[in-house]
Amino acid sequence: MPIQRLSIIGTGLIGGSVAMAAKKYINNCQITAYDSDESSASEALRLGVIDRSTSLNQVGREAELVIVCTPVGQFDAVMRVIAPTLTAGTLLTDVGSTKRSITKLAAELLPAGVEFIGSHPMAGSEKRGIAAAHADLFQRAVCMVMANASTPAASFDLIEKFWTTLGMLVKRLTPDEHDRIVARISHLPQVLAMALTAIQSETTLPYAGRGFKDTTRIAGSDPKLWRDIVLDNADEIRAGLSDLRKQLDQFESLLDPAKQDQLVAWLEHASNLRRGMS
Amino acid sequence: MPIQRLSIIGTGLIGGSVAMAAKKYINNCQITAYDSDESSASEALRLGVIDRSTSLNQVGREAELVIVCTPVGQFDAVMRVIAPTLTAGTLLTDVGSTKRSITKLAAELLPAGVEFIGSHPMAGSEKRGIAAAHADLFQRAVCMVMANASTPAASFDLIEKFWTTLGMLVKRLTPDEHDRIVARISHLPQVLAMALTAIQSETTLPYAGRGFKDTTRIAGSDPKLWRDIVLDNADEIRAGLSDLRKQLDQFESLLDPAKQDQLVAWLEHASNLRRGMS
Repeated sequence: MPIQRLSIIGTGLIGGSVAMAAKKYINNCQITAYDSDESSASEALRLGVIDRSTSLNQVGREAELVIVCTPVGQFDAVMRVIAPTLTAGTLLTDVGSTKRSITKLAAELLPAGVEFIGSHPMAGSEKRGIAAAHADLFQRAVCMVMANASTPAASFDLIEKFWTTLGMLVKRLTPDEHDRIVARISHLPQVLAMALTAIQSETTLPYAGRGFKDTTRIAGSDPKLWRDIVLDNADEIRAGLSDLRKQLDQFESLLDPAKQDQLVAWLEHASNLRRGMS
Repeated sequence: MPIQRLSIIGTGLIGGSVAMAAKKYINNCQITAYDSDESSASEALRLGVIDRSTSLNQVGREAELVIVCTPVGQFDAVMRVIAPTLTAGTLLTDVGSTKRSITKLAAELLPAGVEFIGSHPMAGSEKRGIAAAHADLFQRAVCMVMANASTPAASFDLIEKFWTTLGMLVKRLTPDEHDRIVARISHLPQVLAMALTAIQSETTLPYAGRGFKDTTRIAGSDPKLWRDIVLDNADEIRAGLSDLRKQLDQFESLLDPAKQDQLVAWLEHASNLRRGMS
């Protein structure tokens, strides 16, 4: 893996884990980082996870690869500061949960010769901050990578090599495909876990078993992080909610002993689909 | 623990685990069992989990405690066969996920002197059969027990002692309270996990991360078992679905940058509730 100058913006759970994984799996990788929370960057430095902490308008200078690991809601502000500081030959990526808006922002702001390829490592946790970070967070998980037709092959190869070295399986998509897919496989599960938690009360919560706990584990995630994501992908989340309501309506219409065969077929379809997953 | 003659009807995941736990935690407990699937009872016998396998109209004779561990849909047929074979002093319980219907059935069918107290151990798995059973399935989980005002204190004490000996924390409720609570904390999570799985496709499933997998793990459960449960508790599940739809409608109405404060409040409420759980 040829990357020797890596810059990370945001040293939380994902940024911290990227730094730890890069230190573990890439030889001689020098990491410069910035976090708006001074104490997070200091902690990363203290842990030896990064080599240098600097300001936002310095962090991307001279890097081969810059990775934006802030919450989605800070992308606009971060991109406006860093774009003018990046020089030709630098590759920029991110780890955000939405892709259409940052791709548009990159096309608008980046100087010539600075390539942007969005990334979305499908790894995370309901936990927060560098304290929850670890070098093997990405092992065997999928990383969605958004290269377009005009992306130079060398840039795509570099980003693919980077995530593969950290243990990931890279899949290439367009930003539109990405946002449609994650609305259903990631954002909707989050919303449902929260809605399912919200209908509980002091009467029901003492009876929660392992099923409820697993189903709602991600409901404990950071609310502000999710505010940014759901607002940025609102149209696709609405479309997914509409599909989900249809399934719930169909299920409810089958809650009738006279329709048991159709009810079993509905339950079996979901059960088989889930059992077919690893 | 004074029970020396225990009978188990249904040697699947739960019945098999009850037998294993009774063998592990109760001294000199002789277990007689019946399963409509001969091979399941033979396997239990071979594993030394039960002492004797017999017919349905013999299994409850001479037992101090009889536990019905069949799917909810077989309760009616099982109760009609065993009720006339039980003699005064026998205590009958079950481990089903619904409680109003079996309580009514017991009041209708049991001979004088045979006490029924419904039980619902909040422990389980999406796995099936005796192969997935284990002696510590019940450790530290809650067991809901449905004793009513006319239940003799000695019978309640016996059933409480039994589940406590197997490692459970016993909580006493009425059948109505039980069915209302489990609709929200157990049946609705099941339906949602299945609906969330059903809206996926070959396009989205390859991108499933740990969040999706946890949220939908229980969707792999046995469809016929769940057909019986959801049909038996249909009214409460409809009420829970109505509460859930209100939460989803509210969430969707807040997908608007102008309403971010309310959106964050909605997300925070769920996040805090979930983070407050063990």
